[in-house]
Amino acid sequence: MPIVQITILPQSVEKKTEMSRVITDEMHRITGIPKDVITIMFHELPAESFATGGEMLSEKLKEANKS
Amino acid sequence: MPIVQITILPQSVEKKTEMSRVITDEMHRITGIPKDVITIMFHELPAESFATGGEMLSEKLKEANKS
Amino acid sequence: MPIVQITILPQSVEKKTEMSRVITDEMHRITGIPKDVITIMFHELPAESFATGGEMLSEKLKEANKS
Amino acid sequence: MPIVQITILPQSVEKKTEMSRVITDEMHRITGIPKDVITIMFHELPAESFATGGEMLSEKLKEANKS
Amino acid sequence: MPIVQITILPQSVEKKTEMSRVITDEMHRITGIPKDVITIMFHELPAESFATGGEMLSEKLKEANKS
Amino acid sequence: MPIVQITILPQSVEKKTEMSRVITDEMHRITGIPKDVITIMFHELPAESFATGGEMLSEKLKEANKS
Repeated sequence: MPIVQITILPQSVEKKTEMSRVITDEMHRITGIPKDVITIMFHELPAESFATGGEMLSEKLKEANKS
Repeated sequence: MPIVQITILPQSVEKKTEMSRVITDEMHRITGIPKDVITIMFHELPAESFATGGEMLSEKLKEANKS
Repeated sequence: MPIVQITILPQSVEKKTEMSRVITDEMHRITGIPKDVITIMFHELPAESFATGGEMLSEKLKEANKS
Repeated sequence: MPIVQITILPQSVEKKTEMSRVITDEMHRITGIPKDVITIMFHELPAESFATGGEMLSEKLKEANKS
Repeated sequence: MPIVQITILPQSVEKKTEMSRVITDEMHRITGIPKDVITIMFHELPAESFATGGEMLSEKLKEANKS
Repeated sequence: MPIVQITILPQSVEKKTEMSRVITDEMHRITGIPKDVITIMFHELPAESFATGGEMLSEKLKEANKS
């Protein structure tokens, strides 16, 4: 019954598949919780929906590309 | 002020409407909390964003359809 | 795999048990999703951790008790 | 490391940018937490995914527009 | 109906009260959404429940206090 | 800026520390996202706050212990 909610920029299905597999395996290994009760969910948000330090991630990426 | 957040595969507006009505009615009946302070939100995610047991739901659905 | 997260003032185990049972039954009835893949979680918060309209719920309850 | 998750109807980038900046500034001013460890995320949901009082927000908006 | 969920180290009631008031005022000013439909919730977690860069916040604080 | 929120039964600090380290390492390896912008948070809930299939986890554990 553990729930893992990952909020992240959009990712390919391959990367989500691998993250799901590895995180489930490792949580099972560390806690002993059976794998089949571990649920993982990806909330994918665009860079215009994330801010750190008060600045939108979309702005930070633009600045990084300029330099 | 209770908040009910439902993360689920995409649903029709009719089903979301009925779930909202029934869950609000039942929470009010059980707890006595007034209906108008109960908020329900649906986060609809595709099958490529859910995994259980380390396997993506989209893969499980494909396998189920084969058999 | 639907996840229902309920953020609410502290509730008795009896009320959480009944809400879990009824909400699971109703979601199954409305969507056809099997009951055993529906997970419900209660995040219980004190009145000092909720605000609406910019005012803490703990303050609103104090005012309501005065009148 | 504080995380602020805002679930709201879709908003313009300008409004999300200003909310991010102001909320980060104010949380820093009030708590002393450095701005660059404050993360803000916007989960934008359509009116068909929100209900209060058991009624979908999309229905409430239709009724409000009629009158 | 916007919901603001703040996950943060434990804070005094005074600081939570002021954050609630200011964030509600600013969201109202920026978006025009009425204040009384804005809900704010604080999920307070100990430093042993937060990690960044793969290291628990409780460990980082210990190291910072040593130097 | 990815945020990983894990809702789980109470865990030791050692297990949370190891999960944080491994999940951060693996997400970095799979996505290339720098480790220091990955935040992990544990919401630990008692068995009386989790239900699957409409039954509280605390009840399931009692039944399992009887047999």
